[in-house]
Amino acid sequence: MTFEQWMRSVLGRVEAALEHYLPAEIIEPAKLHEAMRYAVLGGGKRVRPLLCHAAGELTGARAECLDAAAAALEMIHVYSLVHDDMPCMDDDALRRGKPTVHVKYDEATALLVGDALQSQAFVALTSDVLAPAQQAALVRELALASGSIGMCGGQAIDLASVGHTLTREQLETMHRMKTGALLRAAVRMGALAGEAPDANAMRSLDAYSAAVGLAFQVVDDILDVTTDSATLGKTAGKDAKDGKPTYVSIIGLDASRALAAQLRSDAHAALAPFGARAQRLAELADLVVNRVS
Amino acid sequence: MTFEQWMRSVLGRVEAALEHYLPAEIIEPAKLHEAMRYAVLGGGKRVRPLLCHAAGELTGARAECLDAAAAALEMIHVYSLVHDDMPCMDDDALRRGKPTVHVKYDEATALLVGDALQSQAFVALTSDVLAPAQQAALVRELALASGSIGMCGGQAIDLASVGHTLTREQLETMHRMKTGALLRAAVRMGALAGEAPDANAMRSLDAYSAAVGLAFQVVDDILDVTTDSATLGKTAGKDAKDGKPTYVSIIGLDASRALAAQLRSDAHAALAPFGARAQRLAELADLVVNRVS
Repeated sequence: MTFEQWMRSVLGRVEAALEHYLPAEIIEPAKLHEAMRYAVLGGGKRVRPLLCHAAGELTGARAECLDAAAAALEMIHVYSLVHDDMPCMDDDALRRGKPTVHVKYDEATALLVGDALQSQAFVALTSDVLAPAQQAALVRELALASGSIGMCGGQAIDLASVGHTLTREQLETMHRMKTGALLRAAVRMGALAGEAPDANAMRSLDAYSAAVGLAFQVVDDILDVTTDSATLGKTAGKDAKDGKPTYVSIIGLDASRALAAQLRSDAHAALAPFGARAQRLAELADLVVNRVS
Repeated sequence: MTFEQWMRSVLGRVEAALEHYLPAEIIEPAKLHEAMRYAVLGGGKRVRPLLCHAAGELTGARAECLDAAAAALEMIHVYSLVHDDMPCMDDDALRRGKPTVHVKYDEATALLVGDALQSQAFVALTSDVLAPAQQAALVRELALASGSIGMCGGQAIDLASVGHTLTREQLETMHRMKTGALLRAAVRMGALAGEAPDANAMRSLDAYSAAVGLAFQVVDDILDVTTDSATLGKTAGKDAKDGKPTYVSIIGLDASRALAAQLRSDAHAALAPFGARAQRLAELADLVVNRVS
């Protein structure tokens, strides 16, 4: 199977899993469920679900188990986008090429959509396709990665940094929490959905995730200044306009490109112990660095 | 031990558990952790933790297990208060006798405090004082009770009902989701933290929770029109001012008082199968109905 075919197959599964794990629109409150589905379905690169499935191939995880984990990860990611786009945060009107939830509906609905998606992620993870001990392990990974020492904490640091000059180290800390923690959880959860990997394997996977997570952010910063809104599906040039520190603003465009290439090699190197079984993870590192939107 | 002594002892444990399961203020991001602790600690009636501990006494749950469950329940409850108080929702400035989080800090912080408290609740529930299968069962209870078919869904229906006339049945559905689901989860989680109760016992507990949950709301509606803000620790008379349907507005004050008394007897009746072991649950039903704030 080529990487393209593998991607298409996984993306198909992920969309079906999200359909399955989101409450149907006919269930009350219908408007809330409609808005949750509007936010989640039919868009997005699904980077976290792809990483989760690729890592699960290393540990022989069953596809149904990975579907539940992947759906949970994407729900957490989307809830964070919905809340980040709200007027009191980044105040953005465009996401994945569509009006953001608070624009399409209203602010109160956006708040509740995000809140309910977070809960729904933990509902998905406690589906009985996973053994109870796996459910518990995956819940802990996801909860730690999304909370105040992970994604929410990174968002808090990001907000506090607007208009300030950050060192490159501070910028890295912020991104390690804001986006890195959930990407790392995606890899760990995929692996834990199969035969639990030993501590060495987990360390290698974490090193891979750290490189991919940072590469993801560096490329995001590059695209923000080199690409238009239509291609991105979100407002381009926004970080610069908002006075947010980025890799491009701190080290420049050329050094940012070199950094992204270096991080890609780091990611590949971290996968060496796994040999050919890590092929999809290696290809995903390439995808993250080479993407154009 | 008198009920007063039992309450004091449980409330002391719950405060210590919240201290323990909330990240320390010295951990970065310090401002977010400070705001999370501001929202949670040193206030509140702790009704859900008390119900959880009382139900755990029925099934021989260890106090440390109940502490984790109680802390998780209170974090979910407080996150919902923080978000409900925001300008795009109820826009309230006073809670538990203190400025609300978005007033004391800002809206973005309030949004993140709520989000991070929800994650932290699931971190607490996956503490290793609970067996993995119990962690999984408790996570599922809490996630379902807080999400779109529980608390968040009830909140969505509440928002949609402003300025509309609801039937008593519609009002009950809304409250069963908005506050009832989490109170029910508090009782179920307490019971599940010990020897898992059989289906009959669970049905009796659910009947108890349904009566207590509704009584809680009816009394809330009574207090909203009969008590001042200083006693309540939140803005009195707000529901009427906001055009929100309440028991008092639909069936009147006297019928609301009679209903609360009836629900208290219903709660007691549901506990009959448990005999003296259910003493604390019975006393809590009395507390909910007789409270003055």
